[in-house]
Amino acid sequence: MKMFASDNNSGVHPKILEAICDCNKEHVLSYGDDLYTKKAIEKFKEVFGEEIEVYFVANGTGANVIGLSSLLRPFEGVICADTAHINVDECGAIERFSGSKLLQIPHHKGKITIDNIKKVLHGLGDEHHTQPKVISISQVTEFGTVYSIKELKELADFAHENKLLLHVDGSRISNAAAALGCSFKEMLKDTGVDLVSFGGTKNGMMYGEAIISFNPELSKNLKYARKQGMQLLSKMRFIATQFIAFLEKDLWRQNAAQANSMAKLLEEELKSVTEVKFLSEIQSNMIFAEIPREWIEKLQERYYFYVVDEETSLVRWVTSYDTTKEEVMDFVGYIKGIK
Amino acid sequence: MKMFASDNNSGVHPKILEAICDCNKEHVLSYGDDLYTKKAIEKFKEVFGEEIEVYFVANGTGANVIGLSSLLRPFEGVICADTAHINVDECGAIERFSGSKLLQIPHHKGKITIDNIKKVLHGLGDEHHTQPKVISISQVTEFGTVYSIKELKELADFAHENKLLLHVDGSRISNAAAALGCSFKEMLKDTGVDLVSFGGTKNGMMYGEAIISFNPELSKNLKYARKQGMQLLSKMRFIATQFIAFLEKDLWRQNAAQANSMAKLLEEELKSVTEVKFLSEIQSNMIFAEIPREWIEKLQERYYFYVVDEETSLVRWVTSYDTTKEEVMDFVGYIKGIK
Amino acid sequence: MKMFASDNNSGVHPKILEAICDCNKEHVLSYGDDLYTKKAIEKFKEVFGEEIEVYFVANGTGANVIGLSSLLRPFEGVICADTAHINVDECGAIERFSGSKLLQIPHHKGKITIDNIKKVLHGLGDEHHTQPKVISISQVTEFGTVYSIKELKELADFAHENKLLLHVDGSRISNAAAALGCSFKEMLKDTGVDLVSFGGTKNGMMYGEAIISFNPELSKNLKYARKQGMQLLSKMRFIATQFIAFLEKDLWRQNAAQANSMAKLLEEELKSVTEVKFLSEIQSNMIFAEIPREWIEKLQERYYFYVVDEETSLVRWVTSYDTTKEEVMDFVGYIKGIK
Amino acid sequence: MKMFASDNNSGVHPKILEAICDCNKEHVLSYGDDLYTKKAIEKFKEVFGEEIEVYFVANGTGANVIGLSSLLRPFEGVICADTAHINVDECGAIERFSGSKLLQIPHHKGKITIDNIKKVLHGLGDEHHTQPKVISISQVTEFGTVYSIKELKELADFAHENKLLLHVDGSRISNAAAALGCSFKEMLKDTGVDLVSFGGTKNGMMYGEAIISFNPELSKNLKYARKQGMQLLSKMRFIATQFIAFLEKDLWRQNAAQANSMAKLLEEELKSVTEVKFLSEIQSNMIFAEIPREWIEKLQERYYFYVVDEETSLVRWVTSYDTTKEEVMDFVGYIKGIK
Repeated sequence: MKMFASDNNSGVHPKILEAICDCNKEHVLSYGDDLYTKKAIEKFKEVFGEEIEVYFVANGTGANVIGLSSLLRPFEGVICADTAHINVDECGAIERFSGSKLLQIPHHKGKITIDNIKKVLHGLGDEHHTQPKVISISQVTEFGTVYSIKELKELADFAHENKLLLHVDGSRISNAAAALGCSFKEMLKDTGVDLVSFGGTKNGMMYGEAIISFNPELSKNLKYARKQGMQLLSKMRFIATQFIAFLEKDLWRQNAAQANSMAKLLEEELKSVTEVKFLSEIQSNMIFAEIPREWIEKLQERYYFYVVDEETSLVRWVTSYDTTKEEVMDFVGYIKGIK
Repeated sequence: MKMFASDNNSGVHPKILEAICDCNKEHVLSYGDDLYTKKAIEKFKEVFGEEIEVYFVANGTGANVIGLSSLLRPFEGVICADTAHINVDECGAIERFSGSKLLQIPHHKGKITIDNIKKVLHGLGDEHHTQPKVISISQVTEFGTVYSIKELKELADFAHENKLLLHVDGSRISNAAAALGCSFKEMLKDTGVDLVSFGGTKNGMMYGEAIISFNPELSKNLKYARKQGMQLLSKMRFIATQFIAFLEKDLWRQNAAQANSMAKLLEEELKSVTEVKFLSEIQSNMIFAEIPREWIEKLQERYYFYVVDEETSLVRWVTSYDTTKEEVMDFVGYIKGIK
Repeated sequence: MKMFASDNNSGVHPKILEAICDCNKEHVLSYGDDLYTKKAIEKFKEVFGEEIEVYFVANGTGANVIGLSSLLRPFEGVICADTAHINVDECGAIERFSGSKLLQIPHHKGKITIDNIKKVLHGLGDEHHTQPKVISISQVTEFGTVYSIKELKELADFAHENKLLLHVDGSRISNAAAALGCSFKEMLKDTGVDLVSFGGTKNGMMYGEAIISFNPELSKNLKYARKQGMQLLSKMRFIATQFIAFLEKDLWRQNAAQANSMAKLLEEELKSVTEVKFLSEIQSNMIFAEIPREWIEKLQERYYFYVVDEETSLVRWVTSYDTTKEEVMDFVGYIKGIK
Repeated sequence: MKMFASDNNSGVHPKILEAICDCNKEHVLSYGDDLYTKKAIEKFKEVFGEEIEVYFVANGTGANVIGLSSLLRPFEGVICADTAHINVDECGAIERFSGSKLLQIPHHKGKITIDNIKKVLHGLGDEHHTQPKVISISQVTEFGTVYSIKELKELADFAHENKLLLHVDGSRISNAAAALGCSFKEMLKDTGVDLVSFGGTKNGMMYGEAIISFNPELSKNLKYARKQGMQLLSKMRFIATQFIAFLEKDLWRQNAAQANSMAKLLEEELKSVTEVKFLSEIQSNMIFAEIPREWIEKLQERYYFYVVDEETSLVRWVTSYDTTKEEVMDFVGYIKGIK
């Protein structure tokens, strides 16, 4: 049975599993000195252009922490939404590994605004205060919303005008690109983003994420941080081969579009159910809705999902690359049955 | 072509790959709350007994750093061989993550002795000095030697008599058990070891290692360190299923025995070649030998391997679970041809 | 000229300087193994009772960071006001040294409430979330307010009921005790506080603060953290002798009472100036008031002080142990002249 | 009674105490924004030239850790003698604060050689290995020896040719300059040293050391590290005023010369005592000598000092700026009486 708890509850897309099986031949050098890794990096360069650096890591927390730490000295801070994954769901991993402080600001449906960023841009040059250095946003945000190309560009421009850098936590980066109907390059490189935690696991991969740097000067020491940060896997070919399959023939977009469209379907089917109040229009593969409190237990008897706010009965439903129309309709039927 | 550079240059054992493919079904909860993970932990309890804790992590550096950090306060230190992997091959990962100092002592073919440990057991209770807390050994050692059951017990007893703990970096733990002809339990739990970095990747797995604690009190906070240390993978079932296959029907022993016997074969076939001087009798799947300097370049034209010491022409050859007799004989023939 | 910028702009009280000069005799052991240090600790035991531990450190940041870090594992967090000195004025020192996260909550005139603390008491036992471990308050708060004995007891009781600890940042702890008219013991030990950063520098000392632990089990490793944290001074007698003078004949209270009463005088004299809007009734030696924006520049021509909020023209004036009635009246006169 | 345990057992030189008393006037800005601090920095610029940066810190461990950390990324290491204070007497402070590893090499009477440094200059560019970045030496060394101007220049040249930096732990820097009969500038700046922990406390000051950077580009972030590292004292004038007195009329040289000459006197007077075997010719204010084991207890009845090596009965005697000829002769007489 498919669930609506998280896209990381899904398994691996058949084409990606096939790629894993196909590369299980002979010996190759470890730690990334192999042809699969070279080819995967080439694939990323086809996507983004030549002037990038690509570092494969084990997981999303690793991508965020290693990537951000490469941009930061310990007295420098990261401006992010109070709801950011790096702020609330990584057990203080950035603080511990980089020694840096997160400068959290209020969010609006997961997004942050330049006005709110400005409020923490003080104490510059004053050693008593953490020095803001990076703005980190999540694309897709933790509330399922998606920054537009225009918003991304404005954030990047503002960052650079203020000697800051822009980092994107892209654990659902494919869903964002699918939602915006644009390429990864248009969304990330062309807008001026500096560094991306490029996720694959939530969109059909088994494990492994990539740190993509658009400014090699900034990331020149990243390989050391990756090793010292325990994120360098030995049999690297098995991550690389997944990304090759992921990027080939836009499998990533096909997967993300399926997840997104299933979320949209869920939204549409539930529009008529007045007790379900959507937090916002559905843009990606995550749905946030307030539902009657008494429904939750009943629903969770068959479907596991997160309750984001007990007080307001705000729940989160997430679709995946392998969510089917039948599964959505079953879920909708079950909800309507409870009512 | 197989190489003799490292056992992590090999791919994945077919039974383990099969297990991965077999578990790619439906949705399961992430981060280890799934039945595969539960079953893998049960498998480990069948091996070691009930009173253990098992934490799966991404890689060997992660196992060492997260495991050791759970035993240490930052002012406490780890006594280890100067040649220990944690001291020379992990880019200072322990120092950075736990803030602790490594108290390195001389090794004898990779092993450390109680006499040398005693030399750093001073300044106890004096805040100017790092307080020794853990003895960490590698089994198999970095020079391919294997601590005997008796040696392990003596180290554990000495540790506990001195209020220290004993940690084993077991990236090649299967090769050690195969070499000693004993069970994991006899080698680790029964001797008094406190915590093990239990390796799988170098013995036929794709990725993933386990931290095994024989003292749940010591490891009670390990889950937080694992998350904060970026070592908690979301789709955990794919690590768990590998360990299930690894432990089932002693696949681990079959794999390790093959690697060990191929190293032994290589030793035997080269015994007659007087220019090859073995550092010690071969006990595991690693061979260290001094060879004529002028051979190295010629040999590396066809076989990649590490030169450990340029000055003495000390080289390292490693066999793997998938090394065949033919490959060894080819290598031997090539060496004899150079001569 | 005396200023109203901060109590650390003042010099050293004559009796404390005299104590320093008096102990400049002969050689004594360094790092605290001397009779002055022993006597100073005895003085603290006279104040608080026998069951305490006292560690002298160099400064307030050191007291906060070393003290808190001794209570924390890196995955554990500190609940504090968003305005707390440890959160905004120490350049991320706690995050860097202990790896721990600060869980900031809203303040009310510098104070935090149990209701707001409860809001961050979630995710307990869940490794994705920083585990709350310590509540840290400032007494006097950063807005000059003072927690009552009752409030302190409620916070301590709440902390302990929830397996949390209560830490007090007491850089102005004397001003608080003077304001409440109680002893240090009544305010800190009897209410259930676990650890105090006990300040002296802002109340007439030259340098040096004390960490006072009311639970020796918690602080048993503190001496190592103090050394590793660069806070162990060699010629310790010169800190110890200051604290002896500070505690003798309640010099601390005399100093603090003078500072407090001068702040009160300033408040009273300005009550008639309607343009000066006090943030709250003056309780300690800090005054927060909104004044006409155009006054600021003019005032700062003669008196340096901090503008806390440019937007609302909120300014901070601080009196010191050596502030005199004449100086207050001069300042008042100057303000009235501007008007 | 004066002792021969350590120069930090001494008190404060009268002229320095007088300077402290003299600056105890009025209010001045805190944290170094005062005229005393400006003047002290000017004094250092008179000594070293204009192109330096000076940061006052609380103690020697702080100077070493804050200074070194400003030169290092966490994956970079410090090459130092195994006997270096930073390696054995600071409880792992560098590892904890900067996350960096110390790459220890053998010493010869406290000094390190370029030949031994070369042995750890491997694995460059390889992310599995800590990247050497700084050579740190102690001047005076922990064994009382003094690097010559020529040796310092060779170390600095070697460092720079190999893209390394040279740091000097100068807790007894005055004794070294007095021993060499040169200026601080000749010894440190003109030889090519990059950063110095400039000590004062062991040569007659009460507390406070200085970090001197000869390369402002390297130290541009040092003020943040100082604050985040808990080493910024609020009433900074009281450190600054000590350094003014210390540098004025070469008080530092007068103090150091006295200490050095008393050590020399002790050596000369004991030359005839054949049971006392000096480790090397006395160059500074520290004497290392092997003495009959049975003397130790008897000697320590009246004079406290350190036994460096129990096995060889190697003891350390240290003279101070205030050690007198009478005290040395008393000590000599007591030794001869034991014999």
